Amino acid sequence: MSVEIKLPTEKAVQLSHGGGGKEMNNLIKSIFFKAFANPILASEEDAAVLNLDGPTAFTTDSFTVSPLFFAGGDIGKLAVAGTVNDLAMMGAEPQYLSCSFIIEEGFAIASLKQIVASMASELHKSGTRVVCGDTKVVPKGCADGLFINTSGVGRILKPHISVNHLQPGDAIIVSGDIGRHGAAILMAREGLNLESDLRSDCANLWPVVEQLIAANITIHAMRDATRGGLAAVLNEWAQASKVGISVAESQIPVSDEVKGLCELYGFEPHDLANEGTFILAVPQTIASGVVEIINRYGDSQTAAIIGQVEDNHHGKVILTTPWGSTRYLDLPQGELLPRIC
Amino acid sequence: MSVEIKLPTEKAVQLSHGGGGKEMNNLIKSIFFKAFANPILASEEDAAVLNLDGPTAFTTDSFTVSPLFFAGGDIGKLAVAGTVNDLAMMGAEPQYLSCSFIIEEGFAIASLKQIVASMASELHKSGTRVVCGDTKVVPKGCADGLFINTSGVGRILKPHISVNHLQPGDAIIVSGDIGRHGAAILMAREGLNLESDLRSDCANLWPVVEQLIAANITIHAMRDATRGGLAAVLNEWAQASKVGISVAESQIPVSDEVKGLCELYGFEPHDLANEGTFILAVPQTIASGVVEIINRYGDSQTAAIIGQVEDNHHGKVILTTPWGSTRYLDLPQGELLPRIC
Repeated sequence: MSVEIKLPTEKAVQLSHGGGGKEMNNLIKSIFFKAFANPILASEEDAAVLNLDGPTAFTTDSFTVSPLFFAGGDIGKLAVAGTVNDLAMMGAEPQYLSCSFIIEEGFAIASLKQIVASMASELHKSGTRVVCGDTKVVPKGCADGLFINTSGVGRILKPHISVNHLQPGDAIIVSGDIGRHGAAILMAREGLNLESDLRSDCANLWPVVEQLIAANITIHAMRDATRGGLAAVLNEWAQASKVGISVAESQIPVSDEVKGLCELYGFEPHDLANEGTFILAVPQTIASGVVEIINRYGDSQTAAIIGQVEDNHHGKVILTTPWGSTRYLDLPQGELLPRIC
Repeated sequence: MSVEIKLPTEKAVQLSHGGGGKEMNNLIKSIFFKAFANPILASEEDAAVLNLDGPTAFTTDSFTVSPLFFAGGDIGKLAVAGTVNDLAMMGAEPQYLSCSFIIEEGFAIASLKQIVASMASELHKSGTRVVCGDTKVVPKGCADGLFINTSGVGRILKPHISVNHLQPGDAIIVSGDIGRHGAAILMAREGLNLESDLRSDCANLWPVVEQLIAANITIHAMRDATRGGLAAVLNEWAQASKVGISVAESQIPVSDEVKGLCELYGFEPHDLANEGTFILAVPQTIASGVVEIINRYGDSQTAAIIGQVEDNHHGKVILTTPWGSTRYLDLPQGELLPRIC
């Protein structure tokens, strides 16, 4: 057993904060209950009691991002936006989240408070509530600072959005310029300050998805391009729907900052992670209307039609380069940037 | 960035297994999808689509237990039983779980498979399905082997079980002898082999709770006595329901092995964690019938009435010792056994 170091309660998390006794009660009530205040959480039962009705989406994500703070966000913002976005991508209103912390002994209480405040502010953007939680503290060296799991449930307002529903003729739309989250993490990790305008795209997608649902748009598939980036989403779609997808490299929006970092490190923007950028497959006829809605209500104003679904090259993604040549865009391999989310 | 060590895929988890690309797909499909096989999980959407109706319980737990394998269970069994039990304690049928892994680079694939098989076997006991998941891999040294988060949802079959519903006159029942999980972890950690019959009580409580619900028993409160043990549950109840609870030490079932370890290490059995033992508050008149049902359908056959709820000493738990003296039984303080669950 490790020897417990008695740090002042108000400065660092101690093992006793995860012990199930007085200290844990104090931590939970003074930080988590205060930031996430709502009657369901306050009931302190073994499980939250929800009233759900009909088709419901359920998802989970653990966040291990390093560093915990980066340009455009932190692990708290990411943990809320990530799970909210997974629900939104299924056409579901993000109603309720669970929130589970694994904290390394000695973690600064001030940082924990800052991260929790960031979660609360992100929850506010979509009216989502944290209704249950869990806190574990592990001895120094057994985790790297802080890991957060959020799981979420929400009512499906727009059913039948699915990786299996792409249809030949569909337009492929990207909601904004790609690769910013991966590039921002790379920048933070390498201590680069050259590209000062580069920020993660980390954002809550429910507000813009809510507008698409309100406009009664036909959506065949919708997915946020997180780990594996644009390349992973398109490959999964092509395989699941047994279609080909062709995209034009020149149409894919990429910021100059992301382009610069990619050149420097030998990455491809379409392999980099995003945390507030999503891809849609919609009927060609409504595609420009969809781009317009996303640019009006989203964060980036750079949404674009980048390609279409085809009835050949089933299971494959074909990239047309700016020079007119074509090649397969593969699922990324290896691990270029660990702990991106 | 850490340098990636290329271990053979079939022997150890690599960073690329968490990268969102080909290797992650392989790991997920060959291990997780195979063990947890069900159509909802296989759909591979951003979120599982469930049909829920009416009052639903929702809960989360992260598991960081050390060591990962112990007498009577492992982190996988614990991760399923723990969340299933939190749902069962709310009178809810444990229907759907999410499952999220944080794996340290280099973790043995064989151990991962063993843990996942143990999860699958535990799921089977309550008919619960894993319907969504997440896999993160962190570089060597950034986590201690494996952490698992499970969140769960389930239909509430018996509403109004609550920490707030204890009533003066209620009997307090414990479902079996206490402290076995904490003692088993202590034993595993200290490398003790003296007490060879001692095993964690880690168990799925849904089968016995289902029998209580089928018998239409009135249950005012019900909670599994995990971290903080019996002492934590009784104190939380006394405070939440604004009642006093008196228990007789001589009536609390404790095995000789747990007693022996407690004497050796200076612990109290009522402070030790349990993972398959629960406490109930029920009307006095039906208490012996409840004990009978638990002993018939539960694992331990040592359920007992240990005390009652009183209309004095509000917010306090009074323990009567075998010598007839009384003292307050407090909420545990400090952290005697970190990483118990």
